[in-house]
Amino acid sequence: MTKPLFITLEGTEGVGKTSNMEFIKSMLNDKGIDFVETREPGGTPLGETLRAMLLGEDFKGMSDDSELMLMFAARAEHIEQVIKPALEKGQWVLCDRFTDATYAYQGGGRQLNIKRIEGLENWVLGDLRPDLTLLLDAPISVGRERAGKRSTPDRFEQERDGFFNRVRDTYLSRAKAEPNRIKVIDASGDLNSVQQHISSIINKIIF
Amino acid sequence: MTKPLFITLEGTEGVGKTSNMEFIKSMLNDKGIDFVETREPGGTPLGETLRAMLLGEDFKGMSDDSELMLMFAARAEHIEQVIKPALEKGQWVLCDRFTDATYAYQGGGRQLNIKRIEGLENWVLGDLRPDLTLLLDAPISVGRERAGKRSTPDRFEQERDGFFNRVRDTYLSRAKAEPNRIKVIDASGDLNSVQQHISSIINKIIF
Repeated sequence: MTKPLFITLEGTEGVGKTSNMEFIKSMLNDKGIDFVETREPGGTPLGETLRAMLLGEDFKGMSDDSELMLMFAARAEHIEQVIKPALEKGQWVLCDRFTDATYAYQGGGRQLNIKRIEGLENWVLGDLRPDLTLLLDAPISVGRERAGKRSTPDRFEQERDGFFNRVRDTYLSRAKAEPNRIKVIDASGDLNSVQQHISSIINKIIF
Repeated sequence: MTKPLFITLEGTEGVGKTSNMEFIKSMLNDKGIDFVETREPGGTPLGETLRAMLLGEDFKGMSDDSELMLMFAARAEHIEQVIKPALEKGQWVLCDRFTDATYAYQGGGRQLNIKRIEGLENWVLGDLRPDLTLLLDAPISVGRERAGKRSTPDRFEQERDGFFNRVRDTYLSRAKAEPNRIKVIDASGDLNSVQQHISSIINKIIF
């Protein structure tokens, strides 16, 4: 068996992260792999509180720098309390969004300086990076349509298409720069073909 | 008249920051100086929420890194929303604690890596630094006795003397390293002599 892996799932709204997360979990369960499921921003009591502050309406006017710092504060707590302890115990970690999302949303979407994000990434993560990142990719209009069927949009979901196109472009350019770690999965098709693709990637990694 | 100045007040618990802050305010008022009074952690709605999270019991077990990130997230917001706008409008800024407190409490008290604090300081502050820092200094036992007469101690006030002695030592060594910016005021004597000292320092700066 391989060493415990740190797998992250990324993508814009409505690309099917939730249902595909379920699929990955059932795959890992079938293979008898012990894992922890978590998400960002959040994953700890402190992180969930920060998540609510980031996504809610109360601090809507916060500065870009503050937004970035809170994201990474939640991440610091998450790494210290959840991710590192799990990996050290031999458990895999399956995380719904991680630092790539900060590059995509804050860097691409909000157009914060990428060098500044890198600075905080290095400060907080040290040399920890995901072993595998599954990027569910679909045109923004496709995701919009699916997400639109859900409840009230949060602060990020209220952004315009220009924002989300920049988020998507940033995700894709990161995948291009790190093809070994980030696997792009076409999420515009039917769920079955998406899951086949995910399945083949994960099977390659485990065996 | 000089350019608007950014003045910070520092010191451990019970050294008389509150009453001396009042004294400085009345001095500035007497001289017709337009100023903003603020404090850290806090100074903005987001900052006050983070302050409550840092000082309260709910997240007592947060990691050192998270604590440092939240401090600097509050500071980023404070600088962006309060300090820079005031200075740009020509107002002075009078701030109860600033980055020196992070070095003293997190660096000295909690013994976090100073280089890491410097990294975040440079990231958040750019080239903004206080023009003048008044460090009210007294032996920990003196401050303890005064502070002990007040209400329930917060999370930091519950720390032991060893912690506070490290905080004080860090403040003093910073003052030694930056004598032009940081003025040490002996706060163990009576209020009158402390205020005379403060008064002479501020008068020298204004005229």
